[in-house]
Amino acid sequence: MASTDIVTRELENPIDVAEYLFRRLREVGIRSVHGVPGDYNLSALDYLPGCDLHWVGNCNELNAGYAADGYARVNGISAIVTTFGVGELSALNAIAGSYSEFVPVVHIVGQPTTQSQKDGMLLHHTLGNGDYNVFSKMSAGISCFVAHLNDQHDAATLIDSAIRECWIRSRPVYITLPTDMVATKVNGDRLRTPIDLSLPKNDPEKEDYVVDVVLKYLHAAKNPIILVDACAIRHRALDEVHELVEKSGLPTFVTPMGKGAVDETHKNFGGVYAGNGSNPGVSEAVEASDLILSIGAIKSDFNTTGFTYRIGQLNTIDFHSTYVRVRYSEYPDTNMKGVLRKVVQQMKPLNPASIPSLTNQLSPREQASSDQTITHNWLWSIVGQWLKPKDVVITETGTANFGIWDTRFPSNVTAISQVLWGSIGYSMGACQGAALAAKEQKNRRTILFIGDGSIQLTVQELSTILRNNLSPIVFVICNEGYTIERYIHGWDAKYNDIQPWDFANIPKVFGAKENYQGYRIKTRDELNKLFADQEFNSSDKLRLVELYMPRDDAPAALKLTAEAAAQRNG
Amino acid sequence: MASTDIVTRELENPIDVAEYLFRRLREVGIRSVHGVPGDYNLSALDYLPGCDLHWVGNCNELNAGYAADGYARVNGISAIVTTFGVGELSALNAIAGSYSEFVPVVHIVGQPTTQSQKDGMLLHHTLGNGDYNVFSKMSAGISCFVAHLNDQHDAATLIDSAIRECWIRSRPVYITLPTDMVATKVNGDRLRTPIDLSLPKNDPEKEDYVVDVVLKYLHAAKNPIILVDACAIRHRALDEVHELVEKSGLPTFVTPMGKGAVDETHKNFGGVYAGNGSNPGVSEAVEASDLILSIGAIKSDFNTTGFTYRIGQLNTIDFHSTYVRVRYSEYPDTNMKGVLRKVVQQMKPLNPASIPSLTNQLSPREQASSDQTITHNWLWSIVGQWLKPKDVVITETGTANFGIWDTRFPSNVTAISQVLWGSIGYSMGACQGAALAAKEQKNRRTILFIGDGSIQLTVQELSTILRNNLSPIVFVICNEGYTIERYIHGWDAKYNDIQPWDFANIPKVFGAKENYQGYRIKTRDELNKLFADQEFNSSDKLRLVELYMPRDDAPAALKLTAEAAAQRNG
Repeated sequence: MASTDIVTRELENPIDVAEYLFRRLREVGIRSVHGVPGDYNLSALDYLPGCDLHWVGNCNELNAGYAADGYARVNGISAIVTTFGVGELSALNAIAGSYSEFVPVVHIVGQPTTQSQKDGMLLHHTLGNGDYNVFSKMSAGISCFVAHLNDQHDAATLIDSAIRECWIRSRPVYITLPTDMVATKVNGDRLRTPIDLSLPKNDPEKEDYVVDVVLKYLHAAKNPIILVDACAIRHRALDEVHELVEKSGLPTFVTPMGKGAVDETHKNFGGVYAGNGSNPGVSEAVEASDLILSIGAIKSDFNTTGFTYRIGQLNTIDFHSTYVRVRYSEYPDTNMKGVLRKVVQQMKPLNPASIPSLTNQLSPREQASSDQTITHNWLWSIVGQWLKPKDVVITETGTANFGIWDTRFPSNVTAISQVLWGSIGYSMGACQGAALAAKEQKNRRTILFIGDGSIQLTVQELSTILRNNLSPIVFVICNEGYTIERYIHGWDAKYNDIQPWDFANIPKVFGAKENYQGYRIKTRDELNKLFADQEFNSSDKLRLVELYMPRDDAPAALKLTAEAAAQRNG
Repeated sequence: MASTDIVTRELENPIDVAEYLFRRLREVGIRSVHGVPGDYNLSALDYLPGCDLHWVGNCNELNAGYAADGYARVNGISAIVTTFGVGELSALNAIAGSYSEFVPVVHIVGQPTTQSQKDGMLLHHTLGNGDYNVFSKMSAGISCFVAHLNDQHDAATLIDSAIRECWIRSRPVYITLPTDMVATKVNGDRLRTPIDLSLPKNDPEKEDYVVDVVLKYLHAAKNPIILVDACAIRHRALDEVHELVEKSGLPTFVTPMGKGAVDETHKNFGGVYAGNGSNPGVSEAVEASDLILSIGAIKSDFNTTGFTYRIGQLNTIDFHSTYVRVRYSEYPDTNMKGVLRKVVQQMKPLNPASIPSLTNQLSPREQASSDQTITHNWLWSIVGQWLKPKDVVITETGTANFGIWDTRFPSNVTAISQVLWGSIGYSMGACQGAALAAKEQKNRRTILFIGDGSIQLTVQELSTILRNNLSPIVFVICNEGYTIERYIHGWDAKYNDIQPWDFANIPKVFGAKENYQGYRIKTRDELNKLFADQEFNSSDKLRLVELYMPRDDAPAALKLTAEAAAQRNG
């Protein structure tokens, strides 16, 4: 260790690697760290309180990963700590989801000592074959940066690079922290300079060229529209988008994954475009446009109602985080943010088409109905009427995240849904993380809609919610199993059934006391009454609502998407 | 599809790939298939009932993987079905555990169609980058065989090879089943010939040579002993081991991972050897031996009380599944089974040392004590008195799997514990799988000891147990958190605390009716009474027992092992 000691002596302000790492996390806006304690990360966890970071303590690593994802979507970035092998592998599905959907999560893995690894020791949590690289290789495919903190000389640099890459590329990074490195000293003076999180600037000449091309087509178009998708949110281009919407006055639509990207109470807002599953009137408006400004598109099957877009590339300008494409002309290494900013600045007054204003009013037929059955046709407008500005609304993959297409959000709502990755159970974990971030931001409610099948995968995060004194409102759609799967295949198959649970009493066995209130809602009147209940709306308790809906009912968009999926599978 | 049609026409007895696969699973002894339904595996699941296979329907994939591992340890082999991406990644930690500990699990992953994969379609459950190989690459490192069923021509061959490798090498295999391949036809006539599951024979001349060397040292030894470890169980050498124990009359010991490998009521049985954590008197006996017949050793930290073996290689003959080592002479490509069989046949009468007979009697001090606190010193002998022949006994990594070292098993007990991989929460899932296999074998009880921290990771498998009408006895050791971690680091750290749960009422919210009985046990008298209760012992209900033990109490072996781990981490 002679060389290490020399290095340490040369440091003017030596601090431990773990402290350096956690102070950097705090610097970029992380206030709480998710994860599960394990024998190779315990000593690192000791540093959290001193760095003013709250330890969440999830029930398992998959749920912790989902929670970190949800926290990042509200907070901007998040961190999860797991232990070598067993812990990190349990989190992989969640990390892959964050990779798929561009969510910045710092995954820190506590490892055996560097010497144990070099010696290939037969330690617990190994495959017994001396290979200490197999797990990091598995994570490499779902991380945009891998940092092995094995060496005092580059540990601080690697930490800074990892956090920067995580932020800039908006994807998970993987950092290994062997136990002997936790208290190894690095240069604390580095902390005086914040990590540079600014995007690489576009080449100015190239950017101006792209802006000119965009403006040429925009000014020539007769009825241009704006279509906002997931990557506008995930790559932090919403300020530019909002300015574009405001200044251009153009009709603006979002995709399902773009829900929450723009102010849905704005006069320009026209609804959800998703091909055949679009809101009423929307596909006609979008598909009749002669120029679609498509911002941050992810044209996946579930985001397009089974690839039913009818938009020609000749009518499209695509804005992305790493390139812009005008019709078929591609401009690589060009970030949309700079281009959009200049387009807004240089744009001439346009003559936008007007669009019908949108509301959460029930259809006349639903208004006239005396049916008390809670159906999707009825529910999602009612939910829209009930939501408040700044709410965080999470919908599980299934009937909920298709149903929410029909909800008109109040302003500043954050919508969370895993439309591309689509891992069932995700939203229960994400709800814990989102509710924590919302609490840290103050005065935001967190609302989850999850199915009775999905919640079974990750139910124990209700315990983590209670343990952390969080107060989301959780709606469990009780419809007897995996309805989305029934629509794809196996309508009456036993494998789509589930064990019936007593959902409203689950928080009680997970240790809830005064901090919980449960509800059972079976009729429209009951739900209307609940939504009008002031205590329900503003309490600081966890609230779980069993929401009974027919087994066979689903939003129209889900039916269309599932039919397309079934055809492709067949 | 022309070529495919020609192939199908040429088949005399064409059957669908899914049916072929499932009938092969049935043929090798699988009766139930674990897993979670997902959109890319649904149509395959339709084939299960027709192949006389029961679908378990777990709550999530990690738990399904643990359950498949537990099922395989009782049944011999198991299968799990997951869906592409989201499902398979959730199971990886469990599969890695099976790989690490040599448990044969067939992992079948439902995939999008071969055409969608070729086209790199932007489907849900993908990373959105068109790469359909990234997940199978992740599984390749923890599978002994990978079979991509992409082609009608080799699908049946690949299935047979995968199942054979799974069995022979006693490790997981990974099989992809794209939706369009489910009903593709293969040659059903192949099913008339069972898959060859026989081990490759050792080269006879080489085997005889090794046997001679072994016998030379055995006959020359003054006080040889037998030490049986995990791989004797996992590589199915127990018949040979039992014959060796019986015919040689040698003192026989097991390692922690070897628990259950030999009849612990046998007069030769001397107890658990694990270096410093050995049963009383055992390390003296083993370490004084001049020849240790070490069968199937896995000398990991937790199996050796932190590498505290004191056995010289000059006094050791190692028998393994792929090699034998006599002192320092290695004989690769030699399976222990053939060698052991011939050693038993050719062995001359030995003059074995006698060893004290072992019982589950309490120490005189414990017998004299009037203390009602349930301590580890007291518990594990009492458990030994209560167990019955043929019980399946599962212990979670923590106080339980160290405590069980002190329990003398009745005959034919199967012990399950994940000593090497050590993933917390494992045993709750494994309990479901083991209980199902035990039920299929009839008249076997399944008993789990798990901690109040560990069960929080995987608690929902209590629901799967209820749904499948299984009746294990689950002891939840209520000692306020992660005690094994406290002994490694963070004695009073908050991160080792847990949310307090009402364990005995959890099955009720998971839908238990008449098929469940809960208990709370806080004193020795209460536990003695419970163990004497005929209804408790023989009911066909799920039984969950809250077993209150002091927060700071742990088996001596755990304390020693944790101390060694802490030192290595430091």
